[in-house]
Amino acid sequence: MTTSASKLRVFRMGIDTHQELVIYMRHDCDVCLSEGFVASSRVGISALGRSTIATLNVTSDRLIPEGYAGLSDSAMERLGVSHSDLISIHHAPYVESLSLVRRKVFGHRLDPGDMVRIVSDISAHNYSDVEIACFLSVCAGGRLDFDEIVALTRAMVDCGEQLEWPGTDRVFDKHCVGGLPGNRTTPLVVSIVSSAGLVMPKTSSRAITSPAGTADTMEALTNVRLGLNEIRRVVRETGACLAWGGAMNLSPADDLLIRIERALDLDGDGQLVASVLSKKVAAGSTHAVIDIPVGDTAKVRTLADAERLSSLFQNVGAACGMHVRCIVTDGKKPVGAGIGPTEEARDILAVLQGESGAPGDLRARAVLLAGHLFDLADGLGVDAGMNKADRLLQDGSAWEQFRRITMAQGGLKTLGQARFRHTVRASDSGEVQSIDNRRLARVAKLAGAPASLTAGLRLHVNVGDTVTAGQPLYELLSDSPGQRDYALAFSQMGSPIFNIQKEP
Amino acid sequence: MTTSASKLRVFRMGIDTHQELVIYMRHDCDVCLSEGFVASSRVGISALGRSTIATLNVTSDRLIPEGYAGLSDSAMERLGVSHSDLISIHHAPYVESLSLVRRKVFGHRLDPGDMVRIVSDISAHNYSDVEIACFLSVCAGGRLDFDEIVALTRAMVDCGEQLEWPGTDRVFDKHCVGGLPGNRTTPLVVSIVSSAGLVMPKTSSRAITSPAGTADTMEALTNVRLGLNEIRRVVRETGACLAWGGAMNLSPADDLLIRIERALDLDGDGQLVASVLSKKVAAGSTHAVIDIPVGDTAKVRTLADAERLSSLFQNVGAACGMHVRCIVTDGKKPVGAGIGPTEEARDILAVLQGESGAPGDLRARAVLLAGHLFDLADGLGVDAGMNKADRLLQDGSAWEQFRRITMAQGGLKTLGQARFRHTVRASDSGEVQSIDNRRLARVAKLAGAPASLTAGLRLHVNVGDTVTAGQPLYELLSDSPGQRDYALAFSQMGSPIFNIQKEP
Repeated sequence: MTTSASKLRVFRMGIDTHQELVIYMRHDCDVCLSEGFVASSRVGISALGRSTIATLNVTSDRLIPEGYAGLSDSAMERLGVSHSDLISIHHAPYVESLSLVRRKVFGHRLDPGDMVRIVSDISAHNYSDVEIACFLSVCAGGRLDFDEIVALTRAMVDCGEQLEWPGTDRVFDKHCVGGLPGNRTTPLVVSIVSSAGLVMPKTSSRAITSPAGTADTMEALTNVRLGLNEIRRVVRETGACLAWGGAMNLSPADDLLIRIERALDLDGDGQLVASVLSKKVAAGSTHAVIDIPVGDTAKVRTLADAERLSSLFQNVGAACGMHVRCIVTDGKKPVGAGIGPTEEARDILAVLQGESGAPGDLRARAVLLAGHLFDLADGLGVDAGMNKADRLLQDGSAWEQFRRITMAQGGLKTLGQARFRHTVRASDSGEVQSIDNRRLARVAKLAGAPASLTAGLRLHVNVGDTVTAGQPLYELLSDSPGQRDYALAFSQMGSPIFNIQKEP
Repeated sequence: MTTSASKLRVFRMGIDTHQELVIYMRHDCDVCLSEGFVASSRVGISALGRSTIATLNVTSDRLIPEGYAGLSDSAMERLGVSHSDLISIHHAPYVESLSLVRRKVFGHRLDPGDMVRIVSDISAHNYSDVEIACFLSVCAGGRLDFDEIVALTRAMVDCGEQLEWPGTDRVFDKHCVGGLPGNRTTPLVVSIVSSAGLVMPKTSSRAITSPAGTADTMEALTNVRLGLNEIRRVVRETGACLAWGGAMNLSPADDLLIRIERALDLDGDGQLVASVLSKKVAAGSTHAVIDIPVGDTAKVRTLADAERLSSLFQNVGAACGMHVRCIVTDGKKPVGAGIGPTEEARDILAVLQGESGAPGDLRARAVLLAGHLFDLADGLGVDAGMNKADRLLQDGSAWEQFRRITMAQGGLKTLGQARFRHTVRASDSGEVQSIDNRRLARVAKLAGAPASLTAGLRLHVNVGDTVTAGQPLYELLSDSPGQRDYALAFSQMGSPIFNIQKEP
C-alpha cells in the first residue's frame, strides 16, 4: 500500500553495509510511525520504476533531515538513485520463495522450479542476510542431494548473464579450489594452451580472503577491467583473455551466497560445486580442469574429502553439459616464491621467460594442468599433453602468447617495487617440516596485499629445506611502516609459521 | 592483538540496529586499514573491562570525525560507554561454540554441555545475526530431539537470573501461545487464583507483534516497571504481582533468538517450548497452565499440532521439574470486545466488577484456566476448580485482590480515551462466518496500539452474529488522524476482515 505520506527523499548515508541493503529512517518519521516499522523491519522501496527490499535501522533526528530517508551505499546502487531523489516506502512484499526455504527446513526436497524461484529472489536482493543464512544452513551438511545440487547450479546460471563464443564449439577453463598461497597458475595455463590454439576466455575474481586473486595479479601486469565487447575482441584476436570477471554479472547469486557462507564458515560441498560450476557454465565453458590442493592448512584437508568433491564436480558438470576433470595436488606448501599481486606476477614472468631462478614448483603445476587440458582436448594422454605444455614454455610460445594477450588488453606494465622491505630470519637451525599457509597468507594481507599491489612477501625457503639460525626465511614487503610493523608483530605471535625441526 | 593504533573514541551514531551490535568505522581509519577490516567483518571492542563483538559498517569520512568509531545504540548499551569514551578495537576472538553449531549443521547431536556453551555465547552477544539464524535453522524442522530440547531449555535458564520465592514451595504461572486478539486472561487468572491463596508472581512481556501484551494492558491500569525488590515486596504483601518482566534478565537468550525466529518466520516446536518454559523455570514457577488456542488465523492451526505441542510442553516441563498442563481452546475468534491496551483493560475491569455488559467469552476463558490451576494445586478436579473460580469472581474476591495488587504496585489508574473514534460498518447483511484475526490485529496496530495505550478498536460483533448492512462492526480508536486514516485504508484493502455470508 502506498499513500502520499510514504514518499521521502534519499539521504546519502555514506555507509558501506556490504551487500545487505539498509534504509535509515528517523524514529519520528511519519512513514515509520504510520507503517508501524521498527528496527530490523523489512521495508519495500521503489524509485523510478526500480524497487527493492531493505532492512530498517531507526536513527535519531540528528542524523537525517526531516522528510528524508538514509540509504546505504548498496541500496543506492541497487535502486540507481542519487541524493535527494524521491523514493516511496511501503511494507515489504511477502517473498513467496521463502515458503520453499521453510519447506526445506522441514526436510522437503527442492525441485528445479523451487531452486529457480529461490535463487531469483536472492539474485534480486529480496532476501535479508538472515534469510540467506537460513537457506545455506539447511542446504549444508549433505542436505542437498545430487539432483538438488544440479538444480541449484542451473538456477544460479539462469539468473545471470550467459556468455556465448560464436565460431567455437569448445571453450576451456580451469579453477583451483584454493587455500594455497602463491598458486597462481592461471596466467601460465591460459598462455600455454591458447598458444596451441585452444580457446580460453578466462575471467577471474579478485582476492576475497587471500593475499591475491588472479585478477589482482594480472592487474599488476596489464589492464583487467574489460567490458564484454572488449573481452570478445581480445578473444577474437588471441583466442584467450585474462580479465576481471566482476563486471560480467555471471551467476550473480554466487557473490551474495559466498559472503554469508564465509561469515558462517560453512563450506558445504554442494554449495562449493554449484558456486564454481555456475560461473563456468555461465561463462560458456565446455571443458574445465579443477585443481584440488590437499593439505592440513589448505581448503581441502584429506584425500577422502578431495575424492568426494572430485566426483561431485565431475557428475554435476556432466549434468550441466560440461566436461570436468579434477586433479588432486599437494597442498602442503606454498607455491612459487612470491605472495601478493606483484610478487606472484614476478614469478609468472620468470617462468614464462625461462629464467634460471624461476620457481620450478609453479612451472610444474602449470605444466600438469595444461597437460590435462590438452588431453581433454585431443585425448592423446596426459603425458603427451604435459610434454606439449613443457615445450610451449621452453620454446617461448607461451611467453609470446602472454604478450599478445596483454597487448590486446592494453599493454604489459612494468612491475613496481614495495617501499619497505624487511627480512625475517630463522630463529633455529634445522629442517622446515611444514608451513602454516593460513597464517603466512595473513602476514601478506596485513602487509597490505592485495589492496597495495606491491605488498606481500617473498619466500627464501620452503618445506623440506634445511636452514641455519639467522638465515632469511622471507622478505616482508609493504608500502607503509604501520602495515609492516603490524604484519611483523602478527608473525611473531602465536604458533610459529615455519615449523623448523631443531637438529639433535 | 591490541596495538596502540587500535584505540579510538566512541562516536554516538544514534542508530537503532535492534539487538545486533554494529560498529561504524571510516574507510580511511588506520585501525580499519591495518587490521584488514572490511564491511561485515566481526570486530572485537573492549572498554573499561567490558568487551563484545560487533559487525562492521564502513563509512565515508563525512559521517565520523577522525580518531572516532561510531557505535549503534545497542553496542553503546552493551559496552556501557558514552560519547568520546576510549575503546580498543581488535580482531574478534574466535567464538569456540560456533564449531558446535557447525557440528549440528552436519547432523551431530548437541549434548547439554554443547547447549550451554552455545546459549552462553548467544546471551553474551557473541553471535552475529546470521550465526543465530544458522543455529535456529538447523534446530528447526524437528531437528532437535527431546533431550536436546530439554538441554536447550536448561541452558537458557542457566544463562540468566533465576528467581526464588522463599517461604513457598509452589509457585503458579500461566501462558498463552498467542495469536488471538483480546485474549487478555492473565490479570483475571492471577486475581482469581491469588485471591484464594495460590502464589502467582506474574511477570509478562510487552507486545512484540500483537496490538497489546499483558504488560502493555497492565500499564494502562497501574505501574508495571518494578525492580526485583519491589516485586518481592508486592508478592509478599499480596501473594501475586502483575509486572513487566523485561528488566528481570530471565532467559536473556530468548529475546535474541525470538527476534531472528520471527524474522525467519520459523516457529519450530522445540524452540517455542524452550522459549516459554525457560522463562517460567527462571521465574521460579513450579506449576503452569498453558493455553493453546487453535484456529485458522491463530498461531497453532490444527488440533494435531496442538496435541503434539501439548505433549512436548508437558514432558519438557517435567524434565525441568515443572508441572505443566496444556489446554487446547477455540482460537477462531477474537476474545472480549476490546483490542489494544486500554480497551483490553476496560474488558478486564468489566469482568472483575461483574458488569452486565462484561464480555462472557473472556470471563469463561479466565474461569477455565483458573479452574485448571486450582485442580493442579488441590487435585479436586477441574469442575470444582472452575466453580471456585466462578464464585471468586462473583463474590468480588478477585476484584478486591486485583485492587490490592495494583495498590501495592503504585495505585489503580483511570483509563484514558482515544482522541479519534471512527465506526466501521458492515457493507452486507448476513452472518459473520469468520474473522481474520491477523488482519484485525494489524488494523489495531496501524491505529497506534500498543505504543499509544488508548489506540486499538472495540468490536461490536463477533463470529456467529448476524448483521445488517450499515450496522457497526467495530469502532476504530486512535490518537492521530494519520494513524486513523492509515488503519482505515488498510482495513478496506485486500480480502475482507469480517467474512459475512450474505443472505440468499
